[in-house]
Amino acid sequence: MALIVQKYGGTSVGSIERIECVADKLIRFKEQGHDLVVVVSAMSGETNRLVELARQIDTQPVPRELDVLLSTGEQVTIALLSMALEKRGQAARSYTGAQVQILTDSAHNKARIREIDDRNIHADLAAGRIVVVAGFQGVDEKGNITTLGRGGSDTTAVALAAGLKAQECQIYTDVDGVYTTDPRMVPEARRLKRITFEEMLELASLGSKVLQIRAVEFAGKYNVPLRVLSSFEEGEGTLITYEEEEMEEALISGIAFNRDEAKLTIVGVPDQPGIASAILEPISDANIEVDMIVQNIAEDSTTDFTFTVHRNDYERAMEILNKISSNLKAREVSGDNKIVKVSLVGVGMRSHAGIASKMFRVLAQEGINIRMISTSEIKISVVIDEKYLELGVRALHETFELEKVS
Amino acid sequence: MALIVQKYGGTSVGSIERIECVADKLIRFKEQGHDLVVVVSAMSGETNRLVELARQIDTQPVPRELDVLLSTGEQVTIALLSMALEKRGQAARSYTGAQVQILTDSAHNKARIREIDDRNIHADLAAGRIVVVAGFQGVDEKGNITTLGRGGSDTTAVALAAGLKAQECQIYTDVDGVYTTDPRMVPEARRLKRITFEEMLELASLGSKVLQIRAVEFAGKYNVPLRVLSSFEEGEGTLITYEEEEMEEALISGIAFNRDEAKLTIVGVPDQPGIASAILEPISDANIEVDMIVQNIAEDSTTDFTFTVHRNDYERAMEILNKISSNLKAREVSGDNKIVKVSLVGVGMRSHAGIASKMFRVLAQEGINIRMISTSEIKISVVIDEKYLELGVRALHETFELEKVS
Repeated sequence: MALIVQKYGGTSVGSIERIECVADKLIRFKEQGHDLVVVVSAMSGETNRLVELARQIDTQPVPRELDVLLSTGEQVTIALLSMALEKRGQAARSYTGAQVQILTDSAHNKARIREIDDRNIHADLAAGRIVVVAGFQGVDEKGNITTLGRGGSDTTAVALAAGLKAQECQIYTDVDGVYTTDPRMVPEARRLKRITFEEMLELASLGSKVLQIRAVEFAGKYNVPLRVLSSFEEGEGTLITYEEEEMEEALISGIAFNRDEAKLTIVGVPDQPGIASAILEPISDANIEVDMIVQNIAEDSTTDFTFTVHRNDYERAMEILNKISSNLKAREVSGDNKIVKVSLVGVGMRSHAGIASKMFRVLAQEGINIRMISTSEIKISVVIDEKYLELGVRALHETFELEKVS
Repeated sequence: MALIVQKYGGTSVGSIERIECVADKLIRFKEQGHDLVVVVSAMSGETNRLVELARQIDTQPVPRELDVLLSTGEQVTIALLSMALEKRGQAARSYTGAQVQILTDSAHNKARIREIDDRNIHADLAAGRIVVVAGFQGVDEKGNITTLGRGGSDTTAVALAAGLKAQECQIYTDVDGVYTTDPRMVPEARRLKRITFEEMLELASLGSKVLQIRAVEFAGKYNVPLRVLSSFEEGEGTLITYEEEEMEEALISGIAFNRDEAKLTIVGVPDQPGIASAILEPISDANIEVDMIVQNIAEDSTTDFTFTVHRNDYERAMEILNKISSNLKAREVSGDNKIVKVSLVGVGMRSHAGIASKMFRVLAQEGINIRMISTSEIKISVVIDEKYLELGVRALHETFELEKVS
């Protein structure tokens, strides 16, 4: 008998029928003797509906009131799921973030959890109840409702699992685990049984939108075993833990890619201290997030400075560069919004030289030109032309034999 | 500068446009120097939508969870209204029932208010904010969300007005006040400037669905001047207070009527002690509410016992009477669901004899047969055939000169 925290996302509770399926599933778990704490999101579509109501009043609604509004989404789900459990004869009790209570700081719309009061939950579990908690929300010291930012229900689940010292935190979603790459692109893609928190972080931040980055960080920090599973199919999913002896010893765990990138280059600026910040400050002042940054030094004591941004921010970033380029004495500003980023991720990479050169060789053999390169300890990312995305990912998946269990 | 509590019902906040109108209206009041506490209902249709979601899971959902669900309706409105105020540069702050907090007993779905903590509200008013409170909801001692029962937002407003010692509690609705009778039936019907709590109670319970009965009782008990006004038109509305010297000295304030009645008679039962309860107990056990009760003693030591119920309960009540009639040695059971109740209401009635006889004479002159009569200190009710409803109400309105300001 173990304490398990489960989290069901918006699609998993997107209709009354699905809420009833989740109730049935929970009762089967409970019958296996587990203590269950369940975190749920708003029914799919509900958060967008609420945001749209707010937006009709104000495109920049007061953050405090936006939280009051959005938190109703999860509150509806906890009530409905608890009703469905009780209807089936299973005692249950719902809690809003404020009721638990999940104490956060006062940063509305992006609050961080400080502390969780688990007294009510322990009492309910002892009484045989399934505890149903609203994800994504909390309360600050003054009793104001806060939200953790979009998708924050994963974080709620992990924080509860950490606080309650749960055996596992299970994230139910619409995919059945973490794959070596997107199976829609590479049919041979394989579900990973286990990966490390670090690998998951790189995969999540590179576009495998299975888990929220903050939740993975949180799970890693508090060493909460995290499992991603499907709400709709049976299966073991993917377990995310720390590296262990018996773990799959793959060099590469997966290939992530991101189609939403655009790159901008400011060509031939004088190579002086402070030039990087002179370029990036106005970009960041415009609230544009920069992903990769590469700088090359040319022969003539000028430098080319290249960075990538989200494709939606490309036009605005280009305008800013054009404005500042003459002040910076730049020769030229250029850009490309038809590029993608492809990344190899794997903890095995640390101890093995030659991964990078193998990657570059494969791409060259396929006639794919690499536009940018950036590396970290467990990741190598390259920027290539959009049209080569599928070719590149498939070639890499085959070369590194990711379809095989190593 | 006075403290005013205003309440806006579901229709008044039924769309983003209407919420913005309410915001504009509030700012005009605020500019007149008033301190404002605003109570709002769920947007019209929202509570029904939520009830329907619950009903799909369970026709008798767990009361605690139904409250968690339904309370989101008002929470959405307080957030949107506060956003609209802030957007207009008017500082505002929203409060759920739990945040205020409005402490209630634990009777889910029909909780009663015990105490209101007004510290946050006073601090906000002092800081120049408009305070926006979710109607219809509260919290019990253990932190469970409760609701006051449908339409309970009026009660929230009155309770806040009493607690805050507000100068007036203004209920904004889709009618512009309380009328001498329904203007759709009698075009000459006149808006009353003032009536007493007692008269309002009789008018409300008899079908003028302007105000919730509990709210009127509450206002009377704590002597909170209550004003009914239109959200959509300018005007003074109707003020409901205790009887005062300068008040309109009308004999009759208004004529209420109720189309939803049905009557049942159990004929020729032995006139013995306990017979009334033997008839009504099985009716009340079936959760059928009884309105008027009349008993006549016949010559032959038997009695005829007649009562009225809501028309929806007619068939069920008839079944019950048929089942028990032989045990009660009744001669016959009869009924009629094509009847209506018409009532004259007025505090002036107390001191004036002859009202009843005048009423009966008018109806007789119009050829209307009276089926039942029941009286209280400030009310005379008669049951007549449905087809005579309009004729009767118009004749009474004219005879008692209700179109004239007395």
